[in-house]
Amino acid sequence: VGWKGSPVFSKGGASFKVKGRIQYDAGLLRAPDSVMDRATGYSNELRRLRLGGEGQLGGGFGYKLEVELSDNKVDAVDTYISYERGKWLVTLGNQNQFQSLDELVGDTTGSVMERAAFTDAFGFERRLGLAVQYRSGIVLAQAGIFSDNIDALANSSDGPNGGDENNSYGIDGRIVLAPKFGDTQLHFGLSGHWRDLQRLAENPQRYRQRPFLHTVNSYFLNSGDIAATGENHYGVELAGSHGPLWWAGEGHWLRVRRPGLADPTFFGGYGEIGYVLTGETRSYKNGIFGGVKPANPVGNGNGGLGAWQVTLRYDYLDMNDRDIVGGTQKAYIAALVWTPVEYLRFNLNYAHINYTDAAILAGSRSNYGVNVLGWRAELDF
Amino acid sequence: VGWKGSPVFSKGGASFKVKGRIQYDAGLLRAPDSVMDRATGYSNELRRLRLGGEGQLGGGFGYKLEVELSDNKVDAVDTYISYERGKWLVTLGNQNQFQSLDELVGDTTGSVMERAAFTDAFGFERRLGLAVQYRSGIVLAQAGIFSDNIDALANSSDGPNGGDENNSYGIDGRIVLAPKFGDTQLHFGLSGHWRDLQRLAENPQRYRQRPFLHTVNSYFLNSGDIAATGENHYGVELAGSHGPLWWAGEGHWLRVRRPGLADPTFFGGYGEIGYVLTGETRSYKNGIFGGVKPANPVGNGNGGLGAWQVTLRYDYLDMNDRDIVGGTQKAYIAALVWTPVEYLRFNLNYAHINYTDAAILAGSRSNYGVNVLGWRAELDF
Amino acid sequence: VGWKGSPVFSKGGASFKVKGRIQYDAGLLRAPDSVMDRATGYSNELRRLRLGGEGQLGGGFGYKLEVELSDNKVDAVDTYISYERGKWLVTLGNQNQFQSLDELVGDTTGSVMERAAFTDAFGFERRLGLAVQYRSGIVLAQAGIFSDNIDALANSSDGPNGGDENNSYGIDGRIVLAPKFGDTQLHFGLSGHWRDLQRLAENPQRYRQRPFLHTVNSYFLNSGDIAATGENHYGVELAGSHGPLWWAGEGHWLRVRRPGLADPTFFGGYGEIGYVLTGETRSYKNGIFGGVKPANPVGNGNGGLGAWQVTLRYDYLDMNDRDIVGGTQKAYIAALVWTPVEYLRFNLNYAHINYTDAAILAGSRSNYGVNVLGWRAELDF
Repeated sequence: VGWKGSPVFSKGGASFKVKGRIQYDAGLLRAPDSVMDRATGYSNELRRLRLGGEGQLGGGFGYKLEVELSDNKVDAVDTYISYERGKWLVTLGNQNQFQSLDELVGDTTGSVMERAAFTDAFGFERRLGLAVQYRSGIVLAQAGIFSDNIDALANSSDGPNGGDENNSYGIDGRIVLAPKFGDTQLHFGLSGHWRDLQRLAENPQRYRQRPFLHTVNSYFLNSGDIAATGENHYGVELAGSHGPLWWAGEGHWLRVRRPGLADPTFFGGYGEIGYVLTGETRSYKNGIFGGVKPANPVGNGNGGLGAWQVTLRYDYLDMNDRDIVGGTQKAYIAALVWTPVEYLRFNLNYAHINYTDAAILAGSRSNYGVNVLGWRAELDF
Repeated sequence: VGWKGSPVFSKGGASFKVKGRIQYDAGLLRAPDSVMDRATGYSNELRRLRLGGEGQLGGGFGYKLEVELSDNKVDAVDTYISYERGKWLVTLGNQNQFQSLDELVGDTTGSVMERAAFTDAFGFERRLGLAVQYRSGIVLAQAGIFSDNIDALANSSDGPNGGDENNSYGIDGRIVLAPKFGDTQLHFGLSGHWRDLQRLAENPQRYRQRPFLHTVNSYFLNSGDIAATGENHYGVELAGSHGPLWWAGEGHWLRVRRPGLADPTFFGGYGEIGYVLTGETRSYKNGIFGGVKPANPVGNGNGGLGAWQVTLRYDYLDMNDRDIVGGTQKAYIAALVWTPVEYLRFNLNYAHINYTDAAILAGSRSNYGVNVLGWRAELDF
Repeated sequence: VGWKGSPVFSKGGASFKVKGRIQYDAGLLRAPDSVMDRATGYSNELRRLRLGGEGQLGGGFGYKLEVELSDNKVDAVDTYISYERGKWLVTLGNQNQFQSLDELVGDTTGSVMERAAFTDAFGFERRLGLAVQYRSGIVLAQAGIFSDNIDALANSSDGPNGGDENNSYGIDGRIVLAPKFGDTQLHFGLSGHWRDLQRLAENPQRYRQRPFLHTVNSYFLNSGDIAATGENHYGVELAGSHGPLWWAGEGHWLRVRRPGLADPTFFGGYGEIGYVLTGETRSYKNGIFGGVKPANPVGNGNGGLGAWQVTLRYDYLDMNDRDIVGGTQKAYIAALVWTPVEYLRFNLNYAHINYTDAAILAGSRSNYGVNVLGWRAELDF
């Protein structure tokens, strides 16, 4: 019996662990008074609520089964069957498609409260599929074929945009080189993605983003409806860490394939620098950053204060191209995270976001700035 | 590894336990033939179905994560992060607001099948908030600030009555004195509550109650729509136990703040006396009653019959005040509860309820009586 | 601490185990080009996703609490409280009504991907009720009284077809003789069922079936709306096994009681023969078949290939009777199942189905054939 927030039971090649997650968010959104959106001011919500389990069945076969229960509905998150043999790992089920470093980092181990604007705007989500990973030394290579998210495939929904008539599919790949020189961990990543919407093309696509605050349901950036048959997107990742310092940057280009019209390309990217004030090193494993395990947790009998970390991030998104005016954002984000004991964090974030061509008007202006303050309590085991 | 219906695992300051609950209810409602409500007669349902976990993370930090899955939907019940230090307990998340003794007693340890009429009628429910408790000797003091229930805050719902535009909040406090003289446990409680509906005021409030049977979806008492900006309510609690005997009584006043109109005040209260026929004492801890642990559980090899308890309760509710005619009830309730083994109970309840100004007419009469028989099987760990 | 896919904890007469299930399905449906149904071609879905627990409380009392979370909603599956004493087992809650051998066999231990056509067409489902079982030697006798499924009883739904006004009920019984001669296990079963729809009779009944592929939401057989007051149905079961060989066959007759009209009787049945290529014996217990436990699981250090089994099944359904034209099917099914390690299976199924009087027309024809290929990954603990 081991322990990772909850007990890890093992017997021979088999193991089992219960998983759970709670995230409570609150925030303040300040926009120009002329913004007619009612979601300004204070808002709060249960951001995430998860329950599930993970384990091994023996012979290299394992699974993860985790459901998201917030917002009064049921969504499968990581819910897959896996097979590992030597350097190879095969995963079948609902999972991420190696979209980008920021998307793959866990939401309870991320450096800021909400991921880079492009990850939501470009519709990154878990989908049902088959993936293969190869890990050897500094190399991690990932590839897979995916259909759609299990909501969109739910048998009870019907019609072109869901259920049994949804025959969309995509192919995704990512390669990471992660050399380590002494105490310096480096990370270079490239990913490429191609998707054919098939029957989903009967309904338009839409790309949009909230103002770095999920408690708010207002999309200041919005491409509007785009009749599309598919998507190509690709990303570049550069990151690293040295002792308590880490840095990360990504660029991601999404091209929307339109029948008979020129294809617009949207771009998003961010750069961040972070530091663990209490001296710990942020973990890095399997091509992604993890969290910070406090060297002196609260209640260790030694006056432990837990781990404290700060991050500065610049988050850019441009959804203006060809005839599409989805708007742009330049966001300046500062985050303070306290990890009193492992598996528990408190998050305080501030952001100033400058918009151009915003979908929500401030009077007659579409170019203006908003300020956001967000805080979160989160627990994950 | 301890055991509380399910195993309790611990390691250092950390612990974990899976939680579950099943309640199956059935009932008979007999009303005058002239009552045109189709829910009379036999009805049955899965009353509650819960799954979750609770544990400690070390350093005084802990959590509870429990979801309610009956009625084809997902609701968070107690889902919070806690921090305990000495006499202080801080709780952040979805939880009760110390509304009243009867509301705080667990539904699987209560003396009767459904709580006092005022608890539902006045809209008691768990809400998202931050609470502080102080316990020392015979004193328990509780206070907190709360927004709304997590359903009403769900990000996917929008508009004035929910989602990101819901900025309602309230402040709640309760103080309990629980002196013990020899075998006699006493309980004196006072609670006060203030809530500002803010944007929720754009939609009217409604106060209503079922006839002591949740399988039935008919509200015999109903205030109708009331345009309101807030609520004040306060309650008095008197209770105690002596060996197998216990007693409890409460009064609760709810004042609805109306802009430009006189504020109506509704009153509810109950008095009960209970006795454990098999001689056990009903547990009392942290300002609330618990269940009865059988001294001779079924299957103990000794002819054990489990624990048997009876309760008589008078349950009064008056929602007539100012221009509001919500009706009144005088309910006479008798309950028999069998606890064959710990964590499992069978409940048989009878109630005769006299209504005045009922919202459901019996022909042209709004003053009449109904009879209710309810039974329940319930399991909780 | 034992192990059944996940750990089984016990203490005295008490025990606890977490339960989970994942099924991912995909399939190809080929129909004549003139069939205007858009669900032909490729489709895939999360077929089942379950989470729950089961255990014992001591004194012979136990429980199962399992929820189905696929298709974005919450359904209770086996969720009951049980009491076992000697040869008697009493079960109270949401459960099967001993409808037929094929319905009672678990979906992760069945011989083919989808159960016999009559089981869905006749509306077999779990319902809330009280059941008694008696087991002695080769005899298993089961009887119970049931209301409706907990969805249809959900308190939040109202009106004649659900919620508190649903007072339907039924009585069900089944008797099985399971003599064993040397290595030969035999199974003879009879079941009888009677149901009164009561207020549900205000809405019509409908009997329909998919083409052996649940990813597809198209009902090629469909009785259309039938005004009915109740149902009688009864079934015959013949099955057995001898070493790696097993066989099973059932016939089931459903009579729909119509007020003032002649009652139609629908018939469904199947015959199957199966063989475990790797030599294991399919388990049989408590009146149903179980799965195959691999003698040489993958990863046993011995070049284990797991267990491989094949099944051939003929599946017949006739819903033409009196004035009702619900159509008929003759399905020829072949299934290959690989069980690499216990609790994990991969399923590959092919079916050719000939329809007459199909509800979905192929041009102007209602008599034609379709081909189905289905595959599934499934995990159950």
